[in-house]
Amino acid sequence: MAAPSRLLIRGGRVVNDDFSEVADVLVEDGVVRALGHDLLPPGGAPAGLRVLDAAGKLVLPGGIDTHTHMQFPFMGSRSIDDFHQGTKAALSGGTTMIIDFAIPQKGGSLIEAFETWRSWADPKVCCDYSLHVAVTWWSDQVKEEMKILVQDKGVNSFKMFMAYKDLYMVTDLELYEAFSRCKEIGAIAQVHAENGDLIAEGAKKMLALGITGPEGHELCRPEAVEAEATLRAITIASAVNCPLYIVHVMSKSAAKVIADARRDGKVVYGEPIAASLGTDGTHYWNKEWHHAAHHVMGPPLRPDPSTPDFLMNLLANDDLTTTGTDNCTFNTCQKALGKDDFTKIPNGVNGVEDRMSVIWEKGVTCTPTPVERAPYKGEVATLKSRVTKEDATAGTRKQAHP
Amino acid sequence: MAAPSRLLIRGGRVVNDDFSEVADVLVEDGVVRALGHDLLPPGGAPAGLRVLDAAGKLVLPGGIDTHTHMQFPFMGSRSIDDFHQGTKAALSGGTTMIIDFAIPQKGGSLIEAFETWRSWADPKVCCDYSLHVAVTWWSDQVKEEMKILVQDKGVNSFKMFMAYKDLYMVTDLELYEAFSRCKEIGAIAQVHAENGDLIAEGAKKMLALGITGPEGHELCRPEAVEAEATLRAITIASAVNCPLYIVHVMSKSAAKVIADARRDGKVVYGEPIAASLGTDGTHYWNKEWHHAAHHVMGPPLRPDPSTPDFLMNLLANDDLTTTGTDNCTFNTCQKALGKDDFTKIPNGVNGVEDRMSVIWEKGVTCTPTPVERAPYKGEVATLKSRVTKEDATAGTRKQAHP
Amino acid sequence: MAAPSRLLIRGGRVVNDDFSEVADVLVEDGVVRALGHDLLPPGGAPAGLRVLDAAGKLVLPGGIDTHTHMQFPFMGSRSIDDFHQGTKAALSGGTTMIIDFAIPQKGGSLIEAFETWRSWADPKVCCDYSLHVAVTWWSDQVKEEMKILVQDKGVNSFKMFMAYKDLYMVTDLELYEAFSRCKEIGAIAQVHAENGDLIAEGAKKMLALGITGPEGHELCRPEAVEAEATLRAITIASAVNCPLYIVHVMSKSAAKVIADARRDGKVVYGEPIAASLGTDGTHYWNKEWHHAAHHVMGPPLRPDPSTPDFLMNLLANDDLTTTGTDNCTFNTCQKALGKDDFTKIPNGVNGVEDRMSVIWEKGVTCTPTPVERAPYKGEVATLKSRVTKEDATAGTRKQAHP
Amino acid sequence: MAAPSRLLIRGGRVVNDDFSEVADVLVEDGVVRALGHDLLPPGGAPAGLRVLDAAGKLVLPGGIDTHTHMQFPFMGSRSIDDFHQGTKAALSGGTTMIIDFAIPQKGGSLIEAFETWRSWADPKVCCDYSLHVAVTWWSDQVKEEMKILVQDKGVNSFKMFMAYKDLYMVTDLELYEAFSRCKEIGAIAQVHAENGDLIAEGAKKMLALGITGPEGHELCRPEAVEAEATLRAITIASAVNCPLYIVHVMSKSAAKVIADARRDGKVVYGEPIAASLGTDGTHYWNKEWHHAAHHVMGPPLRPDPSTPDFLMNLLANDDLTTTGTDNCTFNTCQKALGKDDFTKIPNGVNGVEDRMSVIWEKGVTCTPTPVERAPYKGEVATLKSRVTKEDATAGTRKQAHP
Repeated sequence: MAAPSRLLIRGGRVVNDDFSEVADVLVEDGVVRALGHDLLPPGGAPAGLRVLDAAGKLVLPGGIDTHTHMQFPFMGSRSIDDFHQGTKAALSGGTTMIIDFAIPQKGGSLIEAFETWRSWADPKVCCDYSLHVAVTWWSDQVKEEMKILVQDKGVNSFKMFMAYKDLYMVTDLELYEAFSRCKEIGAIAQVHAENGDLIAEGAKKMLALGITGPEGHELCRPEAVEAEATLRAITIASAVNCPLYIVHVMSKSAAKVIADARRDGKVVYGEPIAASLGTDGTHYWNKEWHHAAHHVMGPPLRPDPSTPDFLMNLLANDDLTTTGTDNCTFNTCQKALGKDDFTKIPNGVNGVEDRMSVIWEKGVTCTPTPVERAPYKGEVATLKSRVTKEDATAGTRKQAHP
Repeated sequence: MAAPSRLLIRGGRVVNDDFSEVADVLVEDGVVRALGHDLLPPGGAPAGLRVLDAAGKLVLPGGIDTHTHMQFPFMGSRSIDDFHQGTKAALSGGTTMIIDFAIPQKGGSLIEAFETWRSWADPKVCCDYSLHVAVTWWSDQVKEEMKILVQDKGVNSFKMFMAYKDLYMVTDLELYEAFSRCKEIGAIAQVHAENGDLIAEGAKKMLALGITGPEGHELCRPEAVEAEATLRAITIASAVNCPLYIVHVMSKSAAKVIADARRDGKVVYGEPIAASLGTDGTHYWNKEWHHAAHHVMGPPLRPDPSTPDFLMNLLANDDLTTTGTDNCTFNTCQKALGKDDFTKIPNGVNGVEDRMSVIWEKGVTCTPTPVERAPYKGEVATLKSRVTKEDATAGTRKQAHP
Repeated sequence: MAAPSRLLIRGGRVVNDDFSEVADVLVEDGVVRALGHDLLPPGGAPAGLRVLDAAGKLVLPGGIDTHTHMQFPFMGSRSIDDFHQGTKAALSGGTTMIIDFAIPQKGGSLIEAFETWRSWADPKVCCDYSLHVAVTWWSDQVKEEMKILVQDKGVNSFKMFMAYKDLYMVTDLELYEAFSRCKEIGAIAQVHAENGDLIAEGAKKMLALGITGPEGHELCRPEAVEAEATLRAITIASAVNCPLYIVHVMSKSAAKVIADARRDGKVVYGEPIAASLGTDGTHYWNKEWHHAAHHVMGPPLRPDPSTPDFLMNLLANDDLTTTGTDNCTFNTCQKALGKDDFTKIPNGVNGVEDRMSVIWEKGVTCTPTPVERAPYKGEVATLKSRVTKEDATAGTRKQAHP
Repeated sequence: MAAPSRLLIRGGRVVNDDFSEVADVLVEDGVVRALGHDLLPPGGAPAGLRVLDAAGKLVLPGGIDTHTHMQFPFMGSRSIDDFHQGTKAALSGGTTMIIDFAIPQKGGSLIEAFETWRSWADPKVCCDYSLHVAVTWWSDQVKEEMKILVQDKGVNSFKMFMAYKDLYMVTDLELYEAFSRCKEIGAIAQVHAENGDLIAEGAKKMLALGITGPEGHELCRPEAVEAEATLRAITIASAVNCPLYIVHVMSKSAAKVIADARRDGKVVYGEPIAASLGTDGTHYWNKEWHHAAHHVMGPPLRPDPSTPDFLMNLLANDDLTTTGTDNCTFNTCQKALGKDDFTKIPNGVNGVEDRMSVIWEKGVTCTPTPVERAPYKGEVATLKSRVTKEDATAGTRKQAHP
């Protein structure tokens, strides 16, 4: 992207990894040249210097969203954020690069999928982007194309699905082969970790019980289904010494499996997403169908309300490593494809615009909410207790930036 | 208690450890003589046979509440359930024995305390009872009296407080001595496990922050304060090879410490109580002061709403061992001693009547609550999803008795 | 078995669950009639009373070995302990009942397998026995036969293999079906929990590396392969609310998975065996091939020397539940089938005779071994330090019977 | 240190955080100016360019040893490495900075202690150094001096002892005060985490049992004593929101406590040392007294041989954070002060020279050791199994630099 030749960002809170302070930032030809106080010359901005007032704002490095699906043809629909709208949203939220997924059908060419996605993205993107490529089946051709993608196309990550049975799901042996190949060619292996067989059976069971609403989505694939697949993927990857990256870590159980594996010396990385860090799966029981349906994604958000804090702590602690969004938005009309059957609700949530603010709010600062209480009956005293648990326990890692 | 010479309990669900069934129970001279179907002679009850209709009821062995404080002089008041009212409540709830605590002041005689409590209880109790004795200070006299209590008075358990600083709290070295003595004389050591120093400092801090309401009670002694003391007690007991019993396990953290120690071969037992199994500490934030105050006990109930289920699972799994109540009730007027300062709210909750039904409801059966949801807007279809998470995940240990 | 009409067992240490003491035991018509001191009449044994001197011996209830394979046709050979020799060994070790496995080939009838095993066992057994039946494939016939076995043949447990690919291994979906069926008919489901795909790939890899010796057996199926399958089985069983029994728990990792599941409310049971409680997998690196080969079983013993103590602690704590042996012995000539290729060594170890003494030695008593140390050079003082770690840390659960 | 004006380091393996490669490094005026291949001009080194042949060697950034005690007056002796010898050893091992400890007696001035240590170090050090200051008692003076040290002397870390009863040990309340003060002045709090009371009692018990040798050192202060104090320190620090640094993490138990606290959002750091990463406490049972005595340090090395690998995995995973040595060496004559009583053996081990190579060997590369096995008796075949467990499981994090 073309940067203004000279740019002065004034008076914002400049945030670095270890520290934040109110300061000016001088950028020349797209490179930060100076950071300090009162960098504006006394006489005002000279010609060629664009001045941006950032007072009251945060000045952050551009973020990278490691997981998006823009204009993704999926479950009989196509995600509504295309590469234009989606990357515009990303930029609005401080994210300057996304990594999307090129996903061939079973039997399809990986390279063709890659080129297809490029053809969709190139004319439209407003920010930097890159592509992971999915391995949805296995053959010598797939094996060969993986190598070509790494050597000639700049791809360095391949994602395998343990869910979406009959559509994208691969067997354990195919996982073994794909992981082995990633190891050989120096690519990182990624998995969508859920037990697709159990999901398929669980979904049948829910529908048979008459559970057709969005809550059935979570009930048919509870945490254990995610945690099981996560451990299985780690075990298989470890058998071939292949580093592994678990996309969209949605549950405490799965996150624990990852953290324990890391303690045990395994080379494994976990990616929570804006949604799993920012909200929870109690929404699937919301009385408004469309509210519930808009939270449907796979793996689902978890009903345990302590999930977001738990994941955030692991992220702070490096037990989890990156943050994506799985941005794959469908509007209510699209979601309504599954109004009578949750298995037909297109899976996906938003987040590409919100990700950095979610992390900031949940991971760096917190705002306590005061509460009031009725006094002891018969008393006139005004109680002073307006301080909440959050006040009183302030000072954990969240308060790194006072 | 005098039993009717012959008693037939008809048509109840007879519950044993492994099994329950609808059956008649014939009792003669206080001993179960027969269990079966249709034990009533065809011609009706002969003279001398009392028949009790138990249809639709559970027939359970009498329960033992391992932890009560009846008419306990404490925090400037006296618990309102005396040994009559308290044991009457116990019987109403199916509990036929309680174990209360004789607690001497620092410097006081253990034997005298024991006799004092007996003098309170003997004229009043409606059910079996026994006494634990507290060790609240250390001296050669205390050491000698412990032996006498075991040899001559039938006492076999001593409780030490790690909290209630300046009142009952003992030092780590005194714990070491008391545990050593228990080991020598074959008694079981019990502890109230909370870090009394941290509570004292925490309480000062809360009051200084203007937090005077019941929520301050939990905020000044969070889970970590309980878990820390629990590990410390286990470590000290283990150093002298003394079996240890942790009274009122209130938090997931402390329960985990106990369960881990047991996995590690330590001889340690944990006692959740009716309150920690049946409810949680969100009540401290209730807008009604008296509602909040009536939940004040030490250690406090925990705000994490997943605590009761967690403790129940460990109880089912033998990681926790017994169930008490810490029944120590104060009425609202008594609680109001602390209306301006949570540190003055007499600590204590009820439970002696409720304990067995709490365990039954939470640990054996569960009743799902149906939910309804608004349909997709614009649709007329009636959604059939009236089944909740509880339905769909039925079949865990809770359903042992279908 | 016919018992002598009257039998007096004199002077042994009578062991019960909670307590042991030196006492006499009087048995009449196979039933214990009296337990006490000096039960022998002053004038000596009357006619018809057989007197057995048990001085210096333990008097224990007869044990049940939950897992044996007598005269089992397996891996091109047949286990050398037949039902006569094997049950004789059981009795010698205090075990009075074994539970063996009837294992049909894929496609074979379960009922026929059951009858075949009975025909082998009935003429030969010296002690009580029962049979688990294996489900090695899936069809409507299998489903029907499971029901018949439960209703008509007294079978109440079915074992599924997640290992032995192409021989006994079933798929996850077949597991799901088998667990569902067990739930329906009230049988307990058992699994051999190892990832058969990873073992097959691992074995190829080891042989390709030139590792043909017994250590390859463990290297191709490390702990993680067992732990992964254990979690998978628990997850699948939990999805259909079926109680699950994990046979031969061999590793700390797998045991942890089971213990964690139990803490989480799952109905799952783990069975360590005499071998995993009594020794470890360092033997696979023994310089004598036959020594190493005689320890080959699946899942393998684990090289981590802290495994036996870990499993014993969990057994003491009820995180693990029963103890079997997987007694399936092959002599050195049979083991030598795999002298050039560890994958051809018939899998199996002994233990049916040793089980109860292993548990007693490891779980109830321990004997410290003194050590000596050279004094500080130039000193003549004799060091007194002859006490080992075991002395000094005595007093854990092991010392229950001082 | 004065650097040669221009220096070319040729042909070494240049190691960075993420990567290593054989390359030349050009340094000018102490600053790295270029990194690349064949940086030596074709005609050879010009005047003023010093050339260093590093072929076959590693070129690493200088290390920082976070924990040393040079010429430390301790336990009736003085550590034999003075600031000259000790820092010379550091440099020999690639460490270019040490952080030592200024430790006042109880009642003594912190500032005076700081100045005393400077007076010892300044004339002698060969490398960079800094000082932590110990808080061994509490008073307003101590509180004030902490502030002065931070503001005027460049100190930013204070260490408190939970062990060394009557010498350096502080109470829990003093810890609370010291942590509160650190929080106020922005210093990091450090603790030596062991339960000093239990150590004192344990030592008495060991001597009473006749255990006078070095093994008594470990037996009187087992893992649990370290883990307990670690959790207590974290709980207290967390109560005042003070970041905490645990020095010399020696056991798996204590490391787990730290890692769990970090997962739980606590700001806590753990420091394993060269000794705990490189060896274990089985040496205390070595038959040579002096061998055993030279491993005596507090907290002790642990007998569990899996400890070093466990700690290294946590270090790799950021659950543990830094690496020191606790270098505090005593020669055999000094150690012999405790020849008849392990409590008098001056505590301390070496490591300042070895630290970086220990980490490299244990954490980055590993060298498998081949084994041989006797063939099956009566066979002539030569077994090919010369590959060990290490070969076969290669590829974990250790192999990051192939």
